[in-house]
Amino acid sequence: MAKKTKYAVGIDLGGDTIKVGATAKDGRLLFKGVVETRAEEGPSRVVKQIRKGVAAAVEACGAKPIGVGVGSPGVVNAEEGIVENPPNLPGWGRIRLASKIAKKFDLPVFVENDANAAAVGEMTFGAGKELDSFIMITLGTGVGGGVIMNRRLLRGEHGGAGEIGHMSVDYDGEPCKCGSRGCVEAYVGREYLTKRAATRLADAPDSTINRLIDGDLEALTPKVICEAAKTGDPLAKELIEETGRFLGYALASAANLLDIPAFVVGGGVAGFGKPLFDAAKAAAKERALIPMKPRLRVRAAKLKNDAGVKGAAALVFFRGA
Amino acid sequence: MAKKTKYAVGIDLGGDTIKVGATAKDGRLLFKGVVETRAEEGPSRVVKQIRKGVAAAVEACGAKPIGVGVGSPGVVNAEEGIVENPPNLPGWGRIRLASKIAKKFDLPVFVENDANAAAVGEMTFGAGKELDSFIMITLGTGVGGGVIMNRRLLRGEHGGAGEIGHMSVDYDGEPCKCGSRGCVEAYVGREYLTKRAATRLADAPDSTINRLIDGDLEALTPKVICEAAKTGDPLAKELIEETGRFLGYALASAANLLDIPAFVVGGGVAGFGKPLFDAAKAAAKERALIPMKPRLRVRAAKLKNDAGVKGAAALVFFRGA
Repeated sequence: MAKKTKYAVGIDLGGDTIKVGATAKDGRLLFKGVVETRAEEGPSRVVKQIRKGVAAAVEACGAKPIGVGVGSPGVVNAEEGIVENPPNLPGWGRIRLASKIAKKFDLPVFVENDANAAAVGEMTFGAGKELDSFIMITLGTGVGGGVIMNRRLLRGEHGGAGEIGHMSVDYDGEPCKCGSRGCVEAYVGREYLTKRAATRLADAPDSTINRLIDGDLEALTPKVICEAAKTGDPLAKELIEETGRFLGYALASAANLLDIPAFVVGGGVAGFGKPLFDAAKAAAKERALIPMKPRLRVRAAKLKNDAGVKGAAALVFFRGA
Repeated sequence: MAKKTKYAVGIDLGGDTIKVGATAKDGRLLFKGVVETRAEEGPSRVVKQIRKGVAAAVEACGAKPIGVGVGSPGVVNAEEGIVENPPNLPGWGRIRLASKIAKKFDLPVFVENDANAAAVGEMTFGAGKELDSFIMITLGTGVGGGVIMNRRLLRGEHGGAGEIGHMSVDYDGEPCKCGSRGCVEAYVGREYLTKRAATRLADAPDSTINRLIDGDLEALTPKVICEAAKTGDPLAKELIEETGRFLGYALASAANLLDIPAFVVGGGVAGFGKPLFDAAKAAAKERALIPMKPRLRVRAAKLKNDAGVKGAAALVFFRGA
């Protein structure tokens, strides 16, 4: 038998699908697959589905992995491998996910909050490889985050650290579904962003955005705004820059509190690209404390679509190695 | 010779005076003194003054201390014991303060940013003794902070972590002297607070505050506001509650980012007492993420006037022990 590459299995646990990947130590993806989550059938079924995913990866690679990593939504007790009430997995309560997977495969299993896993992924394989400290931000429906300080993951008291999306940039600002006001998520989160775009669109009927969606507001997505901006549409450009600025305000506060002025930004909304990053960097640099300004960096995440499974696999290399 | 108590010398380096204290491991203050800083004569003179302070403490205690701790303003490289450009000590540049003191006394010397030293002090001797993680906030002219996570001091990349005063609660808010807008310091810092009080006072000529200061706005201090509040003065009460709320908004953002919902608040403005803490706690609890709410605590710092020298001494017990 030929010598096999050492690899880790990464599980990206979502509400609809479970993504699975086999990642080598150098970050190469050796295998990738998807199974249904079947969340509505309860936690035992979801655990079975995860096991199927792991088994598929092991089968495809033809060798035993060095371990399994799981990026899970919700509050995760990483030390005990417990997942608590993930928002998109009904009826979970507290589940000892790590031990339930470990028992089946006799492998070390590491569970981490998905935003934290993404940060560890970028540190291990992506845009944070050469950074001693950085804050990872994932811009999607929600705005998640993870903090790497001196090559260590900052967990906080109960593994919940990194919720940069719920730093408020305006105490009297937009209501956020978390119950607070002015959270940066309430400006740059996907739904809030498209809602804001729709409101503005009413005053800019000639915007390319309107042409692209053919008047159908349901079709209004960050992708459409991005396309319109590329054609030079003023409203689209303004929306992207504004999104960047709001993000930048939160980044400045986070940089000041943590003395970490480096940021890695991923997730769907990060697809806005350079105009978003430039606006975020400018706003953050303008507002960060003086010693922070020259070190301020905003980088695009590198792992893109494979961020979930690679981040989960990185947990194994990071903690198990 | 009688057996001497083990103690550490703590130096609280200020722009006008250098406070020195000898603190035993149980937090008892064995000796306390003050020497002039003589900052205008440059760093060599200041170092000499610090040495005088240390010598006085050693003399008074009649035994060698286990080490010397220094709480210094400005950016401190704690690992190398270097102090950089403290704002109130002109012409410093980068000074290897720890080695300059250590050479003279042949003792281990630990230098830390003064806000961080205060946090270590509260953890070791004060309100943070039983807390695993907490954020220390010192409300004075500036609003300083220090973060203790799992009984470790969070330093960030260059020892500057903990600047909670420069978290913005309103991206379009009050200009802060740091160059940003809406920093919590621009609402609750001593000068901003008294300025706000003065503006409000113009519309409330009957306020007890006015009677206490006899119309002299120069005499308007947090202490006066506190006294007026005790007599039931509505404006004074409102100012204190408002200060608490602004503080609470920043606490919620910090709690969410760090997963640390416990706060220890000290400094002169903390003299507002319970009404301030209650308002801060209520605002923070209302706005923190759900898992944080039941754990949210705001406590008064315990070290009060001796916070500086005890915090500095705590550095020795914390890092040298």
